[in-house]
Amino acid sequence: MDDAGLVLGIDIGGTTTSFGFVDRAGNIFNRESIPTQAQDPAEALVARLHEHIEAARTGLPPLLGIGIGAPNANHHKGTIEKAVNLKWGPRVDFLGLVRRFYQVPLAITNDANAAAVGEMMFGNARGMKDFIVITLGTGLGSGIVSDGRLLYGTTGFAGELGHIVVEPGGRQCGCGKRGCLETYASATGLRRTMLTLLAERNDVCPLRNLPFTEMTSKRIYEAAKEGDAIALEAFDRTARILGMKLADAVAHTSPEVIFLAGGLAAAGELLFKPTQRYMESFLFGMYEGSVRLLPSKLEAGDSAILGAAALIWSEL
Amino acid sequence: MDDAGLVLGIDIGGTTTSFGFVDRAGNIFNRESIPTQAQDPAEALVARLHEHIEAARTGLPPLLGIGIGAPNANHHKGTIEKAVNLKWGPRVDFLGLVRRFYQVPLAITNDANAAAVGEMMFGNARGMKDFIVITLGTGLGSGIVSDGRLLYGTTGFAGELGHIVVEPGGRQCGCGKRGCLETYASATGLRRTMLTLLAERNDVCPLRNLPFTEMTSKRIYEAAKEGDAIALEAFDRTARILGMKLADAVAHTSPEVIFLAGGLAAAGELLFKPTQRYMESFLFGMYEGSVRLLPSKLEAGDSAILGAAALIWSEL
Repeated sequence: MDDAGLVLGIDIGGTTTSFGFVDRAGNIFNRESIPTQAQDPAEALVARLHEHIEAARTGLPPLLGIGIGAPNANHHKGTIEKAVNLKWGPRVDFLGLVRRFYQVPLAITNDANAAAVGEMMFGNARGMKDFIVITLGTGLGSGIVSDGRLLYGTTGFAGELGHIVVEPGGRQCGCGKRGCLETYASATGLRRTMLTLLAERNDVCPLRNLPFTEMTSKRIYEAAKEGDAIALEAFDRTARILGMKLADAVAHTSPEVIFLAGGLAAAGELLFKPTQRYMESFLFGMYEGSVRLLPSKLEAGDSAILGAAALIWSEL
Repeated sequence: MDDAGLVLGIDIGGTTTSFGFVDRAGNIFNRESIPTQAQDPAEALVARLHEHIEAARTGLPPLLGIGIGAPNANHHKGTIEKAVNLKWGPRVDFLGLVRRFYQVPLAITNDANAAAVGEMMFGNARGMKDFIVITLGTGLGSGIVSDGRLLYGTTGFAGELGHIVVEPGGRQCGCGKRGCLETYASATGLRRTMLTLLAERNDVCPLRNLPFTEMTSKRIYEAAKEGDAIALEAFDRTARILGMKLADAVAHTSPEVIFLAGGLAAAGELLFKPTQRYMESFLFGMYEGSVRLLPSKLEAGDSAILGAAALIWSEL
């Protein structure tokens, strides 16, 4: 532990909020999780967090800053805006609430952006200047680093690839639109594709016995590993759409690596191999062979806390 | 004219190479054009350019640097690579050739990137930190500025949106692939769409008398202005694909403005209005209303020279 000080990393989710104190080397101390209780006002969460943080920091080196990863967080304004899973209305000045308790440097951004900064400071992107992190979980999150800097854009919301429309009029998305990338390329997207294929095809498949609610991406992964043709096709279709859109992303910022993180990335070669192949097939000649697809180094549980803390460490 | 010095801007095209001396305010002096003679080696062009430049700079203030815009130019390496209209093989060290004659600061990038830097220094993007320039001519070029910096990426070729695949297996593209954005959204794309519509539809249309070679985007524009239904639909289809892909671009870097430049942008409202509408309809909620579509301020003829010179001025 570095006696000079620690940075607090906070990861706010719809159900659980986790935090931990992170040193410059990326070690996490006194990690803790509390229920978000998202139906209550943001003030209530911040007050409860404050209590837990104060108890947890007893005996630790000084607090140098607080980094926060949260859905729909606006880095420029310090706000959380229209987050579907947090019932906080159109806009909450979240950093303003935290500042009532802590007068240290504060920073907030969305979880996938935080993951990208975490990968750059503590993960497989150390020393890299141009890369993208894609998190494939319930949805698809993304953070884009170009020339060593995370892109925020004029709104503070740059690098939100999950809602690019890949199929106009296609699958219904939680955001209110149709055909968004994350309705195809995510753990949920894979499950929906599996269901579509079970309807389209006639083959015997062990997953025919499962209701949709139990047809997790892990079950589909296991079936594919056993050689089930439908599950394999579900992965192939997912990889095709993801690979095609990653090729588009390459045309925007020309990264040297795209990191795949999150639950679905645990499928490993079943996902990485076809995604890389499809991506290459859609790439413009100038980019061919220039970009690799790699797994994140950060463990899923650590990634959000480390990334949030890295927001501050990268500025110190 | 600024006595402190001028920057030479050079615009290399497949047919013509133009240059001019540019002061800090964006005035161009002693502009000249020579044939590129692209079938000859690059050395020959540089030697001829040198002669013309030396003649043209007589009596001018000192030369502070040379900026070059050229197709497929690699900013990182100073090379021109695999340019379809320049018969110079897979790679020419173009800055190396220029350096034989001039020991001033040199910079090179592709024409659309140069246009973006020119727009930032001398055009409608002055003071803006996040914007994109799209040039709609024979093809579609683009340059992306994020947080005040042009994106080059790991390859030096970032921001090349013309070859994003919008229709797998679709229209044949000069790059060897199919369904690239520029085969739909460009002056040539509009002409191809017009031809498709003339085949699909039965209506009377004044352009039915024209062979494809004479069916220019200007003729289609004039027909649309007269209210021709097919020409109007050609603009609408072009705008839909362009608007959709601009919405994707917004999700990557969240610009405050997208500038449309080049020949097709001269269609004005006929192109801008439906493109803005379609773009908005495909935008993720967080970006709604955050991005405007505007014309470039730079005149088509000046843009490339000013942009090339701006590469150097922006560093001085």
